[in-house]
Amino acid sequence: MFLLTPVLVAVVCILMVWIFKNADGATKRREEEPRARAEARPWVDEDLKDSTDVLQVEEDADEWQESEEEVEHVPFSHTRYPEKEMVRRSQEFYELLNKRRSVRFISNERVPMEVIDNVIKAAGTAPSGAHTEPWTFVVVKDPDVKHRIREIIEEEEEINYLKRMGPRWVTDLKKLRTNWIKEYLDTAPVLILIFKQVHGFAANGKKKIHYYNEISVSIACGILLAALQNAGLVTVTTTPLNCGPRLRVLLNRPANEKLLMLLPVGYPSKEATVPDLPRKPLDQIMVTV
Amino acid sequence: MFLLTPVLVAVVCILMVWIFKNADGATKRREEEPRARAEARPWVDEDLKDSTDVLQVEEDADEWQESEEEVEHVPFSHTRYPEKEMVRRSQEFYELLNKRRSVRFISNERVPMEVIDNVIKAAGTAPSGAHTEPWTFVVVKDPDVKHRIREIIEEEEEINYLKRMGPRWVTDLKKLRTNWIKEYLDTAPVLILIFKQVHGFAANGKKKIHYYNEISVSIACGILLAALQNAGLVTVTTTPLNCGPRLRVLLNRPANEKLLMLLPVGYPSKEATVPDLPRKPLDQIMVTV
Repeated sequence: MFLLTPVLVAVVCILMVWIFKNADGATKRREEEPRARAEARPWVDEDLKDSTDVLQVEEDADEWQESEEEVEHVPFSHTRYPEKEMVRRSQEFYELLNKRRSVRFISNERVPMEVIDNVIKAAGTAPSGAHTEPWTFVVVKDPDVKHRIREIIEEEEEINYLKRMGPRWVTDLKKLRTNWIKEYLDTAPVLILIFKQVHGFAANGKKKIHYYNEISVSIACGILLAALQNAGLVTVTTTPLNCGPRLRVLLNRPANEKLLMLLPVGYPSKEATVPDLPRKPLDQIMVTV
Repeated sequence: MFLLTPVLVAVVCILMVWIFKNADGATKRREEEPRARAEARPWVDEDLKDSTDVLQVEEDADEWQESEEEVEHVPFSHTRYPEKEMVRRSQEFYELLNKRRSVRFISNERVPMEVIDNVIKAAGTAPSGAHTEPWTFVVVKDPDVKHRIREIIEEEEEINYLKRMGPRWVTDLKKLRTNWIKEYLDTAPVLILIFKQVHGFAANGKKKIHYYNEISVSIACGILLAALQNAGLVTVTTTPLNCGPRLRVLLNRPANEKLLMLLPVGYPSKEATVPDLPRKPLDQIMVTV
C-alpha cells in the first residue's frame, strides 16, 4: 500500500502532464489553422504564381547564362539617329502611348488579322531569361469559344465577388454586378490569352527551368500593348482570377503553361468611356542620381 | 516520510516528462532548420519576389477594383487609321523592335537626358493593378555611384558563381570570370534601376497593397525597352541576383521598394557583338482558335 501510492501518484502525474502538453499542442495547431486558411486566399490566383521558385533546383542553375556561351557572337548592327531626331522620336512615342487607355467597351467590328500577327510578332521580340521565349499567345476569334471563356470567367468572378463580400453581399450586389459581367469577352473580335511556360523540356525529356518566366512574359505583354496602341487598336489588361486552369483546359494548352493575362482586342465602341484618372508626373516616378 | 515520498515522486515525474517533451520540441526545431536553409536558395533572389501574396489580407481586397468606381467616367477619344495604314504601322513597329538585341558592350558617350526623360515618361503610361503605378525609375549618371553599383553587383555575382559551382569552381574559374565582370556598369552613361513598390500607404498611414505590382512594373519595362529601341539606344535587361537590398540602401530607396531590373543604357560600343540567336517564328508562339 505504501509502496503503491508513490507509483500510482507518479503514473497519474505522468498522464496529467502528457495530456496537458498534448492539449497545448492541439491548441497551437488550431491557432495555426486560420493562418493556413488565410494563406489560401481566394484573391490570389494560385495558377498565376511564378513556379520558377518552386521548381528551381541547383543542378539546373547552370543553364541560366550558359545558353549564350555556346553560340557564335556576331557584330551588332545599329541604327543611330542624330540627337534632335532621338528627342523627337522619343517625344512622339511618349505622346502616342500616353493616349493609350484601358478600354472595356469594345466594338464587335472585325480587325485585320495581319495586324494581330504583327503585334504578336512584335511581342515575341521581348528579351527573356536565358532566351527561353517562354510565351504562348492564344488568339481566339471563334464566337463559341469566346462565349465559353466568358462563361468561365463570369462564373469564377461571381464566386470571387460573393466570397469576398461575405455578409455585405446582399446589399452591395447591384453595385457589384457590373464587375463580373464581361460583355467585351463576347463583343471583342479577338481575345489574346497570354500563357507563360513555367518550364520547357530539354532534349532528354527532363524539365528545363524557365528562369524569370513571369517577368519575361510580362515584358512581352508591355511590348504587345505598345504595338496595339501603335496600330490603333484598344484593349484592357485583365488577369482573370482563378480561371487559369479551366481556360487552359478549354484551349488545350499543356500543363507547363499558365494563364498570365487576357486581352480583349478591337476598336472602341462608339459610347466607350474611361475613368478620368491622371498619370503620375515624371518627378513622381523618376529619381536622378 | 510516507507522505513526502509520493509528493517527491510526483515532482520528479513532472520534471522528467517536462524535460523530455521540451527536448522533443528542440529536436523537431533542429530538423526544420536545414529545410529553412534549403528554402533560402542562393539562386533565387529573395528581394525579387513579389510580396503581394505575403502582405495580402482580405480587408484590402476591396481596393483592387474600386479605385475606378469612384472617379468620373469621360468619353474615350480614339485615333483610328485606315486598314492599310494599320497593317503598315504594325509591320514597321515589328521590324523596328526585331532589330533590338540585348547589348552588353556600351560606349561611354553621353546620351541626351531629354531622351531618357521621354522613355521613362513612356514607361509610366503602362497599365497597373488598380492604377497604383507602383514603379520608381532611378536614373544613375554619377560615375562614383555607378562604380559603387558595379562593386556591389560583382561582389554578389562572384559569390553566386563560386557557391553555385561548388567543387568545380577552381577549374572553371577562368571561363566564368567574364560572367561576373560587368564593365558596362562603369561605361554606360546611364543606369536605370527599376524598383517595384510592393505596397504604398493609404491616407491613414496604413499599408495599401499594390496588386500585381511585379507584373505591372514588368509591363512598364517592356514599354521602356520599346521606347529605348525607338530612340536608337541600346540596353540589356539584367536582374542582379541578391543585390536588391544593398542597391536599395545605396540609392536611399524606402523599404517598400524592391529592385526588379537594372538597365545600362547608351550607344553600343564600336566592337559590340551579340550572340547569333534566332527568335521563334510566329507559328511557334501563336495559336489561333
